[in-house]
Amino acid sequence: MTTPRRIYRLSQAIHQRQEDIIIALDHIHDQHNLSAVIRTADAAGFGKVLWVPDFKVPNELNPEVSRGAERWVDLKVVKDLKAELKQLKEKGFKIAATHMARRAVDFRSIDWTQPWVVVFGNEHRGCEDAIAEMADENIFLPMLGFVQSLNISVAAAVTLYEIQRQRQEKGMYDKTASKEQVERLYKEWELDKNKIDINELYTRKTGDIPDMEEDYQDGRVNLKYLQKKLEAAGLSL
Amino acid sequence: MTTPRRIYRLSQAIHQRQEDIIIALDHIHDQHNLSAVIRTADAAGFGKVLWVPDFKVPNELNPEVSRGAERWVDLKVVKDLKAELKQLKEKGFKIAATHMARRAVDFRSIDWTQPWVVVFGNEHRGCEDAIAEMADENIFLPMLGFVQSLNISVAAAVTLYEIQRQRQEKGMYDKTASKEQVERLYKEWELDKNKIDINELYTRKTGDIPDMEEDYQDGRVNLKYLQKKLEAAGLSL
Repeated sequence: MTTPRRIYRLSQAIHQRQEDIIIALDHIHDQHNLSAVIRTADAAGFGKVLWVPDFKVPNELNPEVSRGAERWVDLKVVKDLKAELKQLKEKGFKIAATHMARRAVDFRSIDWTQPWVVVFGNEHRGCEDAIAEMADENIFLPMLGFVQSLNISVAAAVTLYEIQRQRQEKGMYDKTASKEQVERLYKEWELDKNKIDINELYTRKTGDIPDMEEDYQDGRVNLKYLQKKLEAAGLSL
Repeated sequence: MTTPRRIYRLSQAIHQRQEDIIIALDHIHDQHNLSAVIRTADAAGFGKVLWVPDFKVPNELNPEVSRGAERWVDLKVVKDLKAELKQLKEKGFKIAATHMARRAVDFRSIDWTQPWVVVFGNEHRGCEDAIAEMADENIFLPMLGFVQSLNISVAAAVTLYEIQRQRQEKGMYDKTASKEQVERLYKEWELDKNKIDINELYTRKTGDIPDMEEDYQDGRVNLKYLQKKLEAAGLSL
C-alpha cells in the first residue's frame, strides 16, 4: 500500500519536475550506466531521458541500480537521435553534447536555466560526430588528474547536479507546475490509484468518507487538505 | 613507453593535487563503486582515499571502471576509521559525513576550501552512527524526485565536483605544490622512470644527450625545458 509519506513526496516531485531539461544517451550500452543516469535524473528533478541503445534493448533495467526510478522517469528508446534533436530544436531546446572538441566549453559556463537537451555519448566512442556537430555547444568537465575520462554515470551526475544548482539558485524548483503537467504526471504515475489508497485508509480509520473534490486545488495537489486528512486518519508525514 | 603528453599531464597533475581533501569510504562493499570513486577522485584532483572494506579485500580493482586511477590515488585500507579520523582531526582536518540526520546540512553550504575528510557510507546502511556522530558536519544532497537515495559513486562524484568548483573559484588549482609534495609524488608515481624514457627519446631522435639537471627548477618540473626538449625531438604536446 502507498504510504502517506510516499504520496506527499509524489505531490512535491510533480511540481519540482523541470520539464525543459531532457537527457539524451547516445549509444550507451552498459545497463548499469543507463540505470544510474535514470536514478540521478529523477533525483535532480528531470523526467525525460532519450536513449539510443548500443546493442539490444534489455527487457528491464537493473533494479538494484535504478531503484525503481524508471517508473518516474519517461525513458524513450530512440532510433534516430539526430531527427529527434532536430524536432526539439524547433521546439526551442538547445543541444549540449559532452564532447572533447576544440570548441568545447567548461560545462559550468552554460546557462542551464534555459531549455536544454544534454547528450552523453557512448562509454568508449563518445558522441557520434554528427550529433556533436549539430549541437549548439560541446561541453567538457574539468579533469585535473591523470585519468582523462569519467564514467558516463559520473559525468552525467556531475552535469545534472550543476543544472540543478543553477536552477535552485534561480528558484526554479519552487514554482508551481502547469495544470497540464500536473494532470499528465498524475496519470503517468498512477497517482489516482494512490489517492484511492489514502482515502480508503482515511475511511478505515475514521469511518468517514473524505471529500475527494478538495484533493486538488487550482490543478495542483491540495497539500493542506491532504495533511488534514492524514492527521484525521492518525497518520503523520 | 611513456608519451610526452603523458609526462606533461603528470607534471601538471602533481601541482593540482589538493592534499588537504581526503575521501573516506565507510564499509563500501561494491568494487564497482570503489573503483568509480577512485577514478573521480583523481579527476577532481584529490589523491587520498581511505577505505574500510565491508567484506574481503579484492586482489585488484576493476580496471574497466577505475581506468588505472588507483596508480595515481593513494588508497589506504583502514580497519578503525574512527581512530584514523581522530588523528586527522588533530592534524586540522574537519570531518563531513554524508548522513541523513536531523542536523544534516546541504552539501553546498560547506566551505570546502578548508581541509576536509568527506565520508561516504555503506551502499545500504549508510555511515556508521559513531562516525556520523563524531563528524563536524552531516551533509546531504538535495533530492527532488521520488527515489530517496543516490548511488554511492554518483553521490561522491557530485560532492567531489562541488569541492572542485569551490576550490577552482578560489584559484586553488593554480598554486604551486610544496617541494616535499612534488618529490613525494614523483617517487610514488615513478616519474623518474618516465624522465629517462623521454631523455632516451630525445637522444634517439637528436643524437644529443639532454641536460637532465634542467628537468627540475625549484623543485618542480621545468615545463619550458621539457617542451624545448620535446620539440627538438620532433614531438609536440
